[in-house]
Amino acid sequence: MVEEKSFQDYYPPDLSHCYGCGNLNEMGLHIKSYWDGEESVAYLTPEPYHIATPGFVYGGLIASFIDCHGVGTAAAAMSRSEGRTMDKEPRPRFVTASLKVDYINPTPLGVQLMARGKVKEIGKRKVSVLVEVLAKGSICARGEVIAVRIPESMKQR
Amino acid sequence: MVEEKSFQDYYPPDLSHCYGCGNLNEMGLHIKSYWDGEESVAYLTPEPYHIATPGFVYGGLIASFIDCHGVGTAAAAMSRSEGRTMDKEPRPRFVTASLKVDYINPTPLGVQLMARGKVKEIGKRKVSVLVEVLAKGSICARGEVIAVRIPESMKQR
Repeated sequence: MVEEKSFQDYYPPDLSHCYGCGNLNEMGLHIKSYWDGEESVAYLTPEPYHIATPGFVYGGLIASFIDCHGVGTAAAAMSRSEGRTMDKEPRPRFVTASLKVDYINPTPLGVQLMARGKVKEIGKRKVSVLVEVLAKGSICARGEVIAVRIPESMKQR
Repeated sequence: MVEEKSFQDYYPPDLSHCYGCGNLNEMGLHIKSYWDGEESVAYLTPEPYHIATPGFVYGGLIASFIDCHGVGTAAAAMSRSEGRTMDKEPRPRFVTASLKVDYINPTPLGVQLMARGKVKEIGKRKVSVLVEVLAKGSICARGEVIAVRIPESMKQR
C-alpha cells in the first residue's frame, strides 16, 4: 500500500506547528485528514487521560478534532476548487474563524474515532465545512467550522 | 489571603477527572473558575506547544478553556439560583450540550489568558453561558456554552 499524504502534510513547513495537526509539533495530536470521495476523513484514538468523566472522551478534544479536520478540509477543498494540487506554491493554509460543536451522545473512550467532513460552501477566502464525529459507526458530535485563509499577522513570528 | 475554592473543586470526586478542569486528572489543564461579582473568571497560561502557528495559541485550547469555564459557571449559577452552596449534596455537575467559538483575533502565546463568563439563561436543566477570552485586556475569542445536568449514562463507569 502506498502511503498517501494527508492534507496537513502539505502545509508550509513554517506553518506546521499546530498542536492539533502540525507535523512539527512533537507534543501534538497529529490529526491527519484525507479525501474519501467527496468527503474527508480523519481518525483519532484519544489517550486514556483525554476524558470528561471516566470512560468518556473530553469535549474539548472532540472540538479540537473537528477544528483541525475542518481547517484541513477547507485548505484541500479550496485547492481542488481552484484546480490546483496542494503541493503547488503558495501552499494553502487556513485558520478557524468560528467553530460550533453539538455534542449528540457521550463519546466512549477506548475506540478510534472517525471524523467525516463535508464542504458546505466555498467562497473566495472562506470555506465552511460540516464535520461529524463517530465512534463505532455511531454519531457522537456534529460540528461546523468556518475557515479562512491565514492572515498575514499569523505568519510573522 | 485565604485560598478560595474554585467551582471545579466542588465537583463530586468521581466526576473530577475532566482533562480540562478535573482536580484528579494528572495530565489535565486544571482550569479553575471563580465568581467575580455577577461574572465568572478563570485564568490559563498555555504551554509553549499549545500553538496554532508559532507565537499564537491553538484554537482547540481556547475552545477547551471556554468549554470548561462555561460548564463550571453553569454549575455554580444553577446552585446560586437554587439558593444552595456548591458543597451541598447532590453537588452540581454539568456537561456541554453545545459549544460555539468565534475567533476574533489571533491569541498571543506567552501571556496569561483570562476567560470571563456571563450567565445568559438558566432553565431547569440547562444553562447558557457567554464567555470571552482576553489576552492583556484585548479580546481574542468569544464563545457560548450550553451546559446541561450530567446524564445518568455518564456516571456509570
